[in-house]
Amino acid sequence: MSGECCRDIVCEGCPVLLVIDERRRFIFRVRRGARLGSDRGVLRHDDVIGLPYGSRVRLSTGVEAVVLQPRLVDYMERGLERRSQVIYPKDHGLIVMLLDLRPGMRVLEVGVGSGYTTAVLASIVGPEGHVYSYEIRGDMAETARRNLERLGLLDRVTIRVRDARQGIDERDLDAAVVDMPDPWSILEHLHKALRPGAGAVFFMPAANQVARLLQALELSGAWTETRVYEVLLREYEARSDALRPRTTMIAHTGYILYTRKLQAQQT
Amino acid sequence: MSGECCRDIVCEGCPVLLVIDERRRFIFRVRRGARLGSDRGVLRHDDVIGLPYGSRVRLSTGVEAVVLQPRLVDYMERGLERRSQVIYPKDHGLIVMLLDLRPGMRVLEVGVGSGYTTAVLASIVGPEGHVYSYEIRGDMAETARRNLERLGLLDRVTIRVRDARQGIDERDLDAAVVDMPDPWSILEHLHKALRPGAGAVFFMPAANQVARLLQALELSGAWTETRVYEVLLREYEARSDALRPRTTMIAHTGYILYTRKLQAQQT
Amino acid sequence: MSGECCRDIVCEGCPVLLVIDERRRFIFRVRRGARLGSDRGVLRHDDVIGLPYGSRVRLSTGVEAVVLQPRLVDYMERGLERRSQVIYPKDHGLIVMLLDLRPGMRVLEVGVGSGYTTAVLASIVGPEGHVYSYEIRGDMAETARRNLERLGLLDRVTIRVRDARQGIDERDLDAAVVDMPDPWSILEHLHKALRPGAGAVFFMPAANQVARLLQALELSGAWTETRVYEVLLREYEARSDALRPRTTMIAHTGYILYTRKLQAQQT
Amino acid sequence: MSGECCRDIVCEGCPVLLVIDERRRFIFRVRRGARLGSDRGVLRHDDVIGLPYGSRVRLSTGVEAVVLQPRLVDYMERGLERRSQVIYPKDHGLIVMLLDLRPGMRVLEVGVGSGYTTAVLASIVGPEGHVYSYEIRGDMAETARRNLERLGLLDRVTIRVRDARQGIDERDLDAAVVDMPDPWSILEHLHKALRPGAGAVFFMPAANQVARLLQALELSGAWTETRVYEVLLREYEARSDALRPRTTMIAHTGYILYTRKLQAQQT
Repeated sequence: MSGECCRDIVCEGCPVLLVIDERRRFIFRVRRGARLGSDRGVLRHDDVIGLPYGSRVRLSTGVEAVVLQPRLVDYMERGLERRSQVIYPKDHGLIVMLLDLRPGMRVLEVGVGSGYTTAVLASIVGPEGHVYSYEIRGDMAETARRNLERLGLLDRVTIRVRDARQGIDERDLDAAVVDMPDPWSILEHLHKALRPGAGAVFFMPAANQVARLLQALELSGAWTETRVYEVLLREYEARSDALRPRTTMIAHTGYILYTRKLQAQQT
Repeated sequence: MSGECCRDIVCEGCPVLLVIDERRRFIFRVRRGARLGSDRGVLRHDDVIGLPYGSRVRLSTGVEAVVLQPRLVDYMERGLERRSQVIYPKDHGLIVMLLDLRPGMRVLEVGVGSGYTTAVLASIVGPEGHVYSYEIRGDMAETARRNLERLGLLDRVTIRVRDARQGIDERDLDAAVVDMPDPWSILEHLHKALRPGAGAVFFMPAANQVARLLQALELSGAWTETRVYEVLLREYEARSDALRPRTTMIAHTGYILYTRKLQAQQT
Repeated sequence: MSGECCRDIVCEGCPVLLVIDERRRFIFRVRRGARLGSDRGVLRHDDVIGLPYGSRVRLSTGVEAVVLQPRLVDYMERGLERRSQVIYPKDHGLIVMLLDLRPGMRVLEVGVGSGYTTAVLASIVGPEGHVYSYEIRGDMAETARRNLERLGLLDRVTIRVRDARQGIDERDLDAAVVDMPDPWSILEHLHKALRPGAGAVFFMPAANQVARLLQALELSGAWTETRVYEVLLREYEARSDALRPRTTMIAHTGYILYTRKLQAQQT
Repeated sequence: MSGECCRDIVCEGCPVLLVIDERRRFIFRVRRGARLGSDRGVLRHDDVIGLPYGSRVRLSTGVEAVVLQPRLVDYMERGLERRSQVIYPKDHGLIVMLLDLRPGMRVLEVGVGSGYTTAVLASIVGPEGHVYSYEIRGDMAETARRNLERLGLLDRVTIRVRDARQGIDERDLDAAVVDMPDPWSILEHLHKALRPGAGAVFFMPAANQVARLLQALELSGAWTETRVYEVLLREYEARSDALRPRTTMIAHTGYILYTRKLQAQQT
């Protein structure tokens, strides 16, 4: 079978998403001689080497599973360490659109958490772009670093273990994502770090935070085009004979506030 | 004022989003000597040349406006021709996440419509990537072409005015977005066009279409990891003293079905 | 045709909902000799007298229409005067459930507005129950009175044109609905007016109001079982071949806060 | 303390909702000498006899709890047997509004399940009204009967353990609620049982059912004013300093289809 390693064909060292059934999903890197155990049977890594992705394999018990490339959203679902509340893909998608995220952009992140959002930003800005991430807690920064390393995205990210309320080193950045409890305290430094007209997104769990940030933005007079959103994602039971929304859903992760930098009045 | 033309500074030929107020928003390209009229006053293009984006300008009447870089979502709101129902940014965001869209990817699109989705795909795959777009209607294809040209994204897109149900030329593509009334009729050609394990997204307005496509996917046995979603976006009144969701919202654009290519069983 | 007047059979003086099509809906009382004009034709009232409800009739043009009993929700849609923002049926339904509304209950209402909520309360408590409604604005009270009279519910309602913040006359009431901008200012009077353990619902458009009322409730220590809700109603296109949610919806009317009266500690 | 037993004052035999904290909620009938055990301490029933509802009591451990009248929605949350999927209060509220439910109405129910909906209908039609409930499964009917007895509503309900597809005994009913897998098979009998112009609500979990019922209604030509709804209820964390929607919600229970009886054409 021809094809590119880790893109088309499973080679040693490639990441794999193994799907046994909806609840038994595993992400791992293939190592010759290794085994993956589950309550449905054992997978010998050797059995998947050389297969094209999308292939079926049999566990030791004869149970069938499927071998796939793990997407970023698959990693976020179960392939990464999580030390904090995280922003969800439904919100990441809107953030990408609001910030007009594209290859080559240089993006600021304040509040790294477990690095999930960092990964999304780094993935889309690509190897030509860069993400500058401020995180006040050293343990969080370490988790994020390990997650980004696992995803192969660490080279596009600079993690600074520092309180961004004390200042931001970078200038002329294309966009920013802020996820911290008191985002109003970062506004001045943020303004300096962004290029003219650049957008920033703030993620906040509580309505009180949104009201307070709106007030700070209004008072500053240094921002424009402010919008507040919330994304609700409904997933359906994918059954052709009984199509219906799932019984429960994630009803709230946080509010998303978007705003753009206004230039100081030139007098 | 230093800075890069069209990124930091408004130069002749740069695109501008002029915001007078929430309802008076204009997107245009700056031409020396030109004027933009509105019921609130006239803007002389010459007045914005040399300004950093994010600056305030005065119209002939003294009314203030703001000059910004138009984002893709701004264009989609009012800067492009629209000849068809379009997919909305709320949906585009999720599609980007589901397909793991990244710089350099080669993406298939079936059903171009006005080219909005094409623009999102082209923007994120970047200059190293490419979008192959099939559209059965010549007039639609023309509209999409003009829109993409306006956005400066046409060089990354190949538009084929052809019925994809008759076949798809490309092979080994990284992802696909399908927006057509009878997506079940494209499944075999689509399967051949995708690389192993690649994902496809289908956009459908009606539940009946979803049920029928699910049935076709189940019968074919050639796809896996099928999921059905719907994105609801709530926008809020961005007032610090009276924060509340807007009274009306777009309650439905379409259902999003995601699935992945399974390899044929090797016997 | 046998049957009861105004229940089964259209008699002179009975209310009628005439449905020509989805947008042409009229509510009126039948008067011998009268005519109803529309851009689709004229209905002679005499033509519907004696018909069972649910019958088809022909307008002067030959166009068909249907004659139905108007429900309360039909009146609220187009058969009543409206002088204010109103609470919607989707919210009324939840309020009925939260307050355990039943025949015979005595209910307080603060902020009558156009009387829509009054009508719902009066309808469910029935002839054995009663609604005491406070409204600070005389013109509103008049509108509500006319609406309730039209609905035949005025005899179950006492409207007091008075500021409830100055005191509430009634005692030992079974439930309350409060719709005013500053509901925190009514809490003490409200507490006195309710029977032990009774529930109250507050309707508020903005999140800030909810936060402030929650704070007042917490500080008072005189309430328990506080809950905050929001009801989203999606309507679908009722087409068997293309079932889909309507494109737009009422995304927000207000937040609903429920709480129950706690007895003062006996020391 | 003066007041009416079971309404104002807890007497022997009265129902009580004991709330220790958000997760420890108990509904029981007071019996002299009895005790209620919990992992937070024991309540002696004797300690609540004579208290007004809304009072605080102390458990054996000194932990405080509150004594309240259980509402119907409290019973549905944890005070009744449940043998089936049930319709939720959010849906009951809309059903009440759609059917214009009022004291004295005679209502049909097809598919009783655990009797939750029966209880709502019986509560609102009051002692002057009546509910006729068809249930094909004897064990379900028994559960419903016990639940209704517990709620003191059984005297307003006639439960028929019978397949309504074989026929409905009653005539001239004011409204109907149908909760069965194949509601299209009941349409003719239902039509005969309703008074002219009466409304019926169908509750269905899957979109396919809705599409099929819509088709049957269209083909029959005997119904009008058909509408399809879905109710989404968001609950908020009721914290004044951090107001936010709860993280998870019930995203789907079922679709609600409303329609009205059309009279047969008189020729």
